[in-house]
This record gives sequence, C-alpha cells and structure tokens, in this order.
Amino acid sequence: MKIGNPGEFGLIRRLAALAPVARAVVKGIGDDCAVLPGTKDTFLLWTCDMLVERVDFTRRDAPALVGRKALGVSVSDIAACGGIPRYALVALGLPSGIAAAYVQNLYRGMRKLAQEFGVSVVGGDISRAPAVTIDVSLLGEVRKKRLVLRSGARPGDIIFVTGRLGGSLAGRHLRFQPRVREAQQLVARYGVHAMIDISDGLSSDVGHLIRASGVGADIYAELVPAYPGVNLEHALNDGEDFELLFTVNRTDARRLSRGKTGFFPVGVITSEKNKVRLIDRRGDCCKLVARGFTHF
Amino acid sequence: MKIGNPGEFGLIRRLAALAPVARAVVKGIGDDCAVLPGTKDTFLLWTCDMLVERVDFTRRDAPALVGRKALGVSVSDIAACGGIPRYALVALGLPSGIAAAYVQNLYRGMRKLAQEFGVSVVGGDISRAPAVTIDVSLLGEVRKKRLVLRSGARPGDIIFVTGRLGGSLAGRHLRFQPRVREAQQLVARYGVHAMIDISDGLSSDVGHLIRASGVGADIYAELVPAYPGVNLEHALNDGEDFELLFTVNRTDARRLSRGKTGFFPVGVITSEKNKVRLIDRRGDCCKLVARGFTHF
Repeated sequence: MKIGNPGEFGLIRRLAALAPVARAVVKGIGDDCAVLPGTKDTFLLWTCDMLVERVDFTRRDAPALVGRKALGVSVSDIAACGGIPRYALVALGLPSGIAAAYVQNLYRGMRKLAQEFGVSVVGGDISRAPAVTIDVSLLGEVRKKRLVLRSGARPGDIIFVTGRLGGSLAGRHLRFQPRVREAQQLVARYGVHAMIDISDGLSSDVGHLIRASGVGADIYAELVPAYPGVNLEHALNDGEDFELLFTVNRTDARRLSRGKTGFFPVGVITSEKNKVRLIDRRGDCCKLVARGFTHF
Repeated sequence: MKIGNPGEFGLIRRLAALAPVARAVVKGIGDDCAVLPGTKDTFLLWTCDMLVERVDFTRRDAPALVGRKALGVSVSDIAACGGIPRYALVALGLPSGIAAAYVQNLYRGMRKLAQEFGVSVVGGDISRAPAVTIDVSLLGEVRKKRLVLRSGARPGDIIFVTGRLGGSLAGRHLRFQPRVREAQQLVARYGVHAMIDISDGLSSDVGHLIRASGVGADIYAELVPAYPGVNLEHALNDGEDFELLFTVNRTDARRLSRGKTGFFPVGVITSEKNKVRLIDRRGDCCKLVARGFTHF
C-alpha cells in the first residue's frame, strides 16, 4: 500500500491512534493547534508547519516572502484557536550549494512577520537536505475562556469568513495576512463557537469543522466572497487563503452583520451530520465536494 | 558566498542576530534548548531536530530505529538542560511513492521511545518532500533550580561524561539511550555547573561548552572512555553519542567518583579562554581540534 491510499489525513489519524497522550493534554491531534496546560488563566497553543521547495514554493519565489509564509501559516493556526503567537523554533533543511544570501533573505522575511506579530525566534536547527525545507514550530497562548476549537459548531449557527477567497496560485499564497487581530476582536466580543483557518480551501476546511463538530453545513454560492477575477470554483477550492472560517449564533451574526466588520456570512450550520451542501441562487443544492489541496 | 563559508554554526548565530527576542525569554538561541517562562516553579524547555534521509539515516535503516532516533535526539537535549520531556510535535516530509508500512514503523519506533520517557505526541504536519524528512519539536519542563546551561562551567571544575563514546557510524547512532534519568540524578544530588549532550562529538561539544562559559578545558586522553574496538580518534570525534558532558566542582567530583555512578571524569576546566588541550599519558599536550560532524 502506497501513501496515496490512506492519504495525508488518514496518516495523521493513524499517528493519533498510535500516540499515547497524557491526561494533562487539553487537545491533541485534530485541531489547528495542540492545546496544553499553561498558567492558571491560560493554555499553551502549539503548532508546526513544514514547507518544502517545489511543493509549497519554488526557488524563483522571493526568499523573504517564502520566509514570511513559513512563519505566517503557523501564526494563522494560533489565530484560529483564539490565541496570540509568542515563540518560534525554525528548522531549516538546505541543499549544500545554496547561497548564504538566500538564507539571510529567508530569515529577513521571517523576522519582519515575527516583529509584526510579536513573535520571538528562540532557536532552531539546520541540516543538509535535497530541497529547501522549512519547519516552523510556534508556541502561543490563549486565555482559557477564549479558546476556540473546530468542534463547537451548533445547528443554526451562521458561518462567516474573515475575507475574500481564491487566487492563491496566482501568488496570493505568499502575501496573505494572518488574522490574529481579527480573531482577537471576535473572541473578545462575540461568542465564537468554532473556528478554523482556510489552508486547504473552504470546501475542505468547512468539512474538517463540521466533522469535528458532528454537524453539517449549507454554503450559499452567491455569498462566497471571491477576489476580483476569481470564480466560485477557485474561491471554494484554491486553499492557502488563511482567512478564518468561524461560526456564531444568530444573535451574534446579526451584531456582526450590522457593524462594518468586513466579515462575510457564507452559510449556516445544519443538523445533517457530515453533509456539506452548496446552494445556488435559485435554491437548488448539490453536495459540496472537498477539492482542496492534499499532499498525496 | 556559498553556505559552506559561514557554516552551520555561523548561520545559527546570524539567525540569532536577526531575531528580536522578548524579555520574557530566559535563554534563546545558543544552548541545547530554548528556555521560556513556565509556571511559578518551572521553566519550559523547547528544542527541535530535523533528520534527513541520506544525511542522518538511509532508507535501509530500520524505520522503527529511525523514528526512535528522531525523537531521541530531542529528548537528549531536554535531558542536557536538567529537564523532563513532555510533549512532541512531529513534522514529516515524505516522497510520494513511499510505503504506508514504512511510515507506520517510523511511528511505532517513535511511540516506543515516547512511552518510555512519558512523552505525548500531540500533533504534527505531513508534507510531500524529495527525501524522508523528520522534524521533531519537543517541549519539556525543568524546575527553575535545576536548570543547567552550557554557560556555567568554572575554572577548576572536573569534566565528566555519562558513558562510553565513539562508534556511532557503526550503527550506534540508531541505538543510543537518552540520559534523562542520569541527568535527573545529577541535578537533584549534585551541583552541576554546565551540561551539553554529545551530538557533534566530544571534541566539538566541549568547545561549545567552554566558549559559552568563557573558560578553557584540558582533556586527558587516557581517561576518555571508548567503546570496545573504538580508538581515541573516533571516541573524540564520531559524534551522535548522546552521552552528556557536564562539569561539577572538585567536592562533587570526589562524591561522584566514589559512588558506582558509571560516570567518567575526562578532564578539567581551565581559565585559558576558548582553549581546549588534549593531554597524553606523559603529560604532553596539544590543541584538541574540533573534528566533529558539521552539515556544511
């Protein structure tokens, strides 16, 4: 059996099944971050993301933007759990002939984003590798009351996204803005039931959220906010948008829709377990198939 | 300028120079672990290590032993700071044609070591990559009073190692035992001034320790404990021994030598800044050149 068979998510589930987990762990494998005991009032949030040349970026991409992305995708995971990023470790795999200037620019892009979000780079590792490989491990914290997981969505909740979607392959995947501030506003002022960042594409990530919550979702095609020049297909499936997808009850949804929050309602949580439907403007519906990015 | 020029350690120093670090950070880049604020009585210890196929292991090595090593090297870093490992994230880069059984055996080896040392695997990431790549990020904790860094060695201290050295290339690099229990004994009962794990080779790692401490060292050739069949050259330089090298004052050194502790005194800390000498049985000495493993 080759790896394409169980696939990326199957493999992560198998790892979860194999791994013994201490009772102190609040949330292990299966959310945007692991949640660990912190202080009296806070949890630790912990995530890692590995980017590999020719898979997630090319050598022709500006290294500063690649470095920025490598840290940014993890910052986005911390945001999706309602937390603040704090500390990063950076493991680099580098081909032996690579120019030192390339690596320095990678660091510079990373540093710029680190400064913007108050992240301290506290260590790392460097190894030889056949392709440029960047694994960032990021620690953050969240007030216990503000922790949001994928698993809290309830039937009747309204589903929102924090910004326009699609167009990542046209270069937007290197220039996204992690939504830490937006998430902080949300968890401070609204009762956010569930949240996830859109890394694999809305069609895939809404599926992750409803499966974790034991619910279903109806997405309204005409509500899905696409970037100018991006069609619905790409807005639903491109991935690497790093906008947040979240759910709130109807009262909070009304409050959110009244203000100039820049958030877009895109659908509603249903009690139809594990079913995601796409509804067009005439009210016709079809199954929304997850066509987002997978590695295998 | 190619990367061989500033080299691995130069690059890590440059990253340190670029990286802004919050005041709360107890110790950033430059030790076996980063040290971060924890609870009232403890610090968090944090480390990561990236292993890459054809650099750190081959596809012919048993995957369970490779998985064991991938976690073990980080466990060893936590031990070297006087701490206990707690939580791990595992980022995997995998070639697309790899067998699922290979990955499962990798996990099994990792799990076995995780259980032995009470480590919970709480998350990870899987990506496509041209070579099998394993980056383990490990969090541990240490009682504040028991924290040991590389930087505390004092002239007159006796230098010890926790076990026999050399022979890693003959396969021992896949079968080492992280010295968590030994380190816990040491920090609980003795005043350990400085400690480091021997990953690059004694000749390199004693250099890291004395530079961090602003001291020098004399190593006595006939005291260096080698595995049977391993000559002095290999015992000094092979690396990946993952024994601990530590220093204590003479009183504690006498206590350590009297007991059946299995620890070996190998030399003495001097006030000759940044100088490491190798002294033979006739008392002749020469400069001990760091010939340990480097990636570039």
